[in-house]
Amino acid sequence: MASIEDKFRTLGIDNAPGQEVRQNADDVTRLQRGPVMTGTLVDFSHGDVDAFLPTPGSFDEFAEAVAIGGRQAYTEYRGAAAIRAELAADLASFTGAPVQPDLGVIITPGTQGALFLAVAATVGDGDKVAIVQPDYFANRKLVEFFGGKIMPVALDYLGSEEEAGLDLAQLRAAFEAGAKTFLFSNPNNPTGAVYSATEIAAIADLAREFGVTVIADQLYSRLRYENTAYTHMRAAGLPEDQVLTIMGPSKTESLSGYRLGIGFGSPSIIARMEKLQAIVSLRAAGYNQAVLKTWFREPAGWMDERIVQHQAIRDDIVAIFRAEGMATRVPQAGSYVFPTLPELAVSLADFVKLLRIQAQVIVTPGTEFGPHPNSIRLNFSQDRNAAVAAAHRIVQMAKTYKV
Amino acid sequence: MASIEDKFRTLGIDNAPGQEVRQNADDVTRLQRGPVMTGTLVDFSHGDVDAFLPTPGSFDEFAEAVAIGGRQAYTEYRGAAAIRAELAADLASFTGAPVQPDLGVIITPGTQGALFLAVAATVGDGDKVAIVQPDYFANRKLVEFFGGKIMPVALDYLGSEEEAGLDLAQLRAAFEAGAKTFLFSNPNNPTGAVYSATEIAAIADLAREFGVTVIADQLYSRLRYENTAYTHMRAAGLPEDQVLTIMGPSKTESLSGYRLGIGFGSPSIIARMEKLQAIVSLRAAGYNQAVLKTWFREPAGWMDERIVQHQAIRDDIVAIFRAEGMATRVPQAGSYVFPTLPELAVSLADFVKLLRIQAQVIVTPGTEFGPHPNSIRLNFSQDRNAAVAAAHRIVQMAKTYKV
Repeated sequence: MASIEDKFRTLGIDNAPGQEVRQNADDVTRLQRGPVMTGTLVDFSHGDVDAFLPTPGSFDEFAEAVAIGGRQAYTEYRGAAAIRAELAADLASFTGAPVQPDLGVIITPGTQGALFLAVAATVGDGDKVAIVQPDYFANRKLVEFFGGKIMPVALDYLGSEEEAGLDLAQLRAAFEAGAKTFLFSNPNNPTGAVYSATEIAAIADLAREFGVTVIADQLYSRLRYENTAYTHMRAAGLPEDQVLTIMGPSKTESLSGYRLGIGFGSPSIIARMEKLQAIVSLRAAGYNQAVLKTWFREPAGWMDERIVQHQAIRDDIVAIFRAEGMATRVPQAGSYVFPTLPELAVSLADFVKLLRIQAQVIVTPGTEFGPHPNSIRLNFSQDRNAAVAAAHRIVQMAKTYKV
Repeated sequence: MASIEDKFRTLGIDNAPGQEVRQNADDVTRLQRGPVMTGTLVDFSHGDVDAFLPTPGSFDEFAEAVAIGGRQAYTEYRGAAAIRAELAADLASFTGAPVQPDLGVIITPGTQGALFLAVAATVGDGDKVAIVQPDYFANRKLVEFFGGKIMPVALDYLGSEEEAGLDLAQLRAAFEAGAKTFLFSNPNNPTGAVYSATEIAAIADLAREFGVTVIADQLYSRLRYENTAYTHMRAAGLPEDQVLTIMGPSKTESLSGYRLGIGFGSPSIIARMEKLQAIVSLRAAGYNQAVLKTWFREPAGWMDERIVQHQAIRDDIVAIFRAEGMATRVPQAGSYVFPTLPELAVSLADFVKLLRIQAQVIVTPGTEFGPHPNSIRLNFSQDRNAAVAAAHRIVQMAKTYKV
């Protein structure tokens, strides 16, 4: 049994996105090669909501909620009923499978909040959980925090552009070994890979065969390039109660400052999530919930325009890395890119610190996403010119520190 | 080892404040005596933020934060540095002991969020935790969720008006039996009792002797009547790292719709809380954090006026219950009152449901706060006339259902 000390020892956040300001940089200056580079600081650890503004009308909905007062401040723990009803309709339409308004939706403080509650609701001490490598860094930490055991499943994201590259034999082996939960992001974070219809069907078949609960983090599933085909896990024919989907308007819609996430689908998982939310944070901030009224109801053309703008940056950035032979998958969706670095004379942790103090670039090390010491993750939802210049600095730094 | 099913079985929320709407009332109508009463519905499960409006200027700070954009949307997980610095100064001044701005403050999604993180940071599987009875219902649930074992300590809140009534012999016994954490609210929720200087000093002595960490939930410590003397736990001479205090502007200041809480004091506990917040919800909503700039900086006289108004309602309500012989402590602080019911012919759970469907009154059953099947909790931060009329209806109902 893990002691409370052990539990927190594995919960490192020093390299987590946004926490770089708490790092001590002194220890890497002795490794520095060449001069400090000039340029605008670009923080690729998250999107720039000043470059891509929040959804039009979002603040107005918030202001109206404050004016409504108490009814909006104190909602049910799972969120305001009227808002959940609207969401259920929109999410059913988006994903192609029905959503129960009263039993099938919970509003949480961000998608992180939904993920935390979902894992807490399904994973107990000693339970085995299948996790993709690479995948969102919190997946691993959450499972470990609740005493679960990770069964890694590899994603060969550089192998093909038609498939995400999930190793289905490993997934079957994890289920055969007793994993009762499969947790994955689609599009994959950090690579931007989208699972093919064939892959989703194969996951559904295995989950059905072994009675596995699937938690699908689809945070970026609206930001898809060139009409990439997308198959929603929850529409793949598994029983409703076996799939929980997580989404939210924090990324594509730039509403992260409002901290809103949604878990939808499985009524039994959502019932547990609500019980737990009652002691974790009671509810997503009441006034903030009203901002969800803008979600899936953006002005005509707004989302298309946002996709076009992101695609232009994506193409620039991928081209810069590939031109230097840094293997990089073209993300089919989302705003993350996960280029491969050459072999370096310094550790990845030190290289990332050097990028910050020498090249005015903040990125997230690949090691946060699994055993990926040769990659870095960039969120390219940034000012385009600044992002391009910063990507060139990263390439320059990689050349400077190459063995 | 508790299974995931066991873990959630103990996490009931059917009677939790604000969740009454999810109850099925059909089963109590057969118990109903007499006609349905008329009157405005009063929801005593929480304060009415339409009767007591949020702090002046709070919305303006929020609006300004949205205008600032990304810098305010993505703060460190523990909260924006500039806001924490202001809070540290104000909280040090309020509590009479220093607060480290960088290491000694974390901003959380509500005080519930702070409480969750604080318990998660200190209580592991099998750890013993001393908990007061009665006390805030989530304390017990949180400790049980993390596998801790509750060591109850009685509060004789009807025994004296000078002391809160903590049974110090039981507290010592709990510490002797191995409890390493003491978690309590001051003013006590649900009774409004304030711990005397002598009691706080005794708690500090025992905590020092046994090396016990103290988590002090002081959510209502600003709303004190008739200049009630108040001793802050963190100013009682224990080492800084041994005490974590929790406060927030959700109650007295009516800012609950923004979900803001603060943990302050112990740097080591706060470091763990931040690590955990990174996987629970990342941070309190970024824009919302700016609302804290109004905290402890309300317009001159605003807090005094709010106290006077609450005191008037308190006096009315307590008089109504006492006139019927329902033993009730006069709350020295906060806006909760915890009257004792006569012996009833129906269960407390049924009586509370009957209050809702027959008397248009929502209250929280005493059983949520420990083994207190003869009491109900009311949050009297309400419209005064509506609250007085509703209290009369409660008394009438108690007479109707008395054995």
